[in-house]
Amino acid sequence: MARRRTETVLVTRWDGVAARRGPDELIVEEPMAIQLDGVLVATTMRTPGHDYELAAGYCLTEGLLAGAPVEAVRYCATGSASETDFNIVTVETGGRAPAPTPRLTATTSSCGICGSAELDELLARLEPLTVSRTWFAPESLADLAGAALAGQPLFDSTGAVHGAVAFDTDGTALVSREDVGRHNAVDKVIGRLLLDGRLPAHDLALAVTSRASFEIVQKAWAAGFSALVAVSAPTALAVTAARRAGLTLAGFARDGRVNLYSPERLPG
Amino acid sequence: MARRRTETVLVTRWDGVAARRGPDELIVEEPMAIQLDGVLVATTMRTPGHDYELAAGYCLTEGLLAGAPVEAVRYCATGSASETDFNIVTVETGGRAPAPTPRLTATTSSCGICGSAELDELLARLEPLTVSRTWFAPESLADLAGAALAGQPLFDSTGAVHGAVAFDTDGTALVSREDVGRHNAVDKVIGRLLLDGRLPAHDLALAVTSRASFEIVQKAWAAGFSALVAVSAPTALAVTAARRAGLTLAGFARDGRVNLYSPERLPG
Repeated sequence: MARRRTETVLVTRWDGVAARRGPDELIVEEPMAIQLDGVLVATTMRTPGHDYELAAGYCLTEGLLAGAPVEAVRYCATGSASETDFNIVTVETGGRAPAPTPRLTATTSSCGICGSAELDELLARLEPLTVSRTWFAPESLADLAGAALAGQPLFDSTGAVHGAVAFDTDGTALVSREDVGRHNAVDKVIGRLLLDGRLPAHDLALAVTSRASFEIVQKAWAAGFSALVAVSAPTALAVTAARRAGLTLAGFARDGRVNLYSPERLPG
Repeated sequence: MARRRTETVLVTRWDGVAARRGPDELIVEEPMAIQLDGVLVATTMRTPGHDYELAAGYCLTEGLLAGAPVEAVRYCATGSASETDFNIVTVETGGRAPAPTPRLTATTSSCGICGSAELDELLARLEPLTVSRTWFAPESLADLAGAALAGQPLFDSTGAVHGAVAFDTDGTALVSREDVGRHNAVDKVIGRLLLDGRLPAHDLALAVTSRASFEIVQKAWAAGFSALVAVSAPTALAVTAARRAGLTLAGFARDGRVNLYSPERLPG
């Protein structure tokens, strides 16, 4: 079923002198629940489309699969005609993934999350894929990311989405996704690679139009990317995590310029 | 305890010609768990500071208080010296708030969240405060919001935070907060107003530097603001929710221009 990703509404535009009415194209935002082997693991506000990728990618990047292969992804649709039936997606591993615990519960037990020890534990749980990484030369990352991110259609029309692109050392985009949520755009890219049997993404870098927060680093690293390039700023914790994980992290990649935050020093 | 809100790291800057190393100021991002009467209700990645406001504001804007007054807000610190003891905050109502259910569980039961009926139900649960709202003239909203948002210190230094400001019909900022998470900035503003006995905010508008998503509309409306002004775009669901709630919603408020999405038509 084709779902609308934008919606046109009537808007009153005030240009400083006069008001006029006209249509405006807005990004669609709808909740989607993600189940793993029948257990609800997340509800996210997302732009419809590539829902299977989003569900599969989320389960991988949150460490919920723990190496279990995805057997099937499907809507919880019941055969009725309601559009909202398509707002629940189940990822199935035939019970091979560990029984999921809700995230809220999982974090209850830790009073000191994201201290140094907890960061180590998280990185261990996500199974570091530190071998045979591809080196993306920092001086080329801005140009490569810029080329890969060019021409994302929804941002052009709505100005309200985040983009994520997996690209190779030539700057060629392999998978490009947009979503109202920046985490979702990343999960959709990674989910596509997962469903294509294309992970770990050691030979690829991930570019995002947003900032690089800790969770984006976590997701990029869980998928095995060699580098993460953000158009905007990283957070301090994102830099700490990337350095710990051995992930190349670049920020403020614009107009051929780039800041390299990880590794801490250029090799050589 | 004063917590750092920014952190300086060494970065390699590539300007297109040469690389040089130097310090860069990054926004701090740390997890904070929020408890209501001892039960964990959320874990959010936030910038430290104004943690009590964040916790109280979150409980209010997510409809968890259901009218119960906040008796106390405190850290779960145990007297030990660890900084991470300050990453759990408890909001106490003496059991007068309904026993919280984790959000993941709460959304499990609904297969069709954010259909029309569910939106009505959500708006009802948040106790619409539709009486005696203040009319913020659309033609002045861009200027008022611009004035209120001016001079947020963290964005200037890190380029990586979202801001939220409560302002009156003169454009005077009453409370101004910044955070790595846009929801957090809004919750901190609303939490401050709540702890000051300043809610419902019928005589105030809320300006945000980010987009206006559904959840931002929900939070603004739960606090009783008369208007919400976003510097960036609203989502389609945000417009639907604002029109349903009778909340004035403006977007793309920049350089004296503004788009008015709700009400659907200008009065008169």
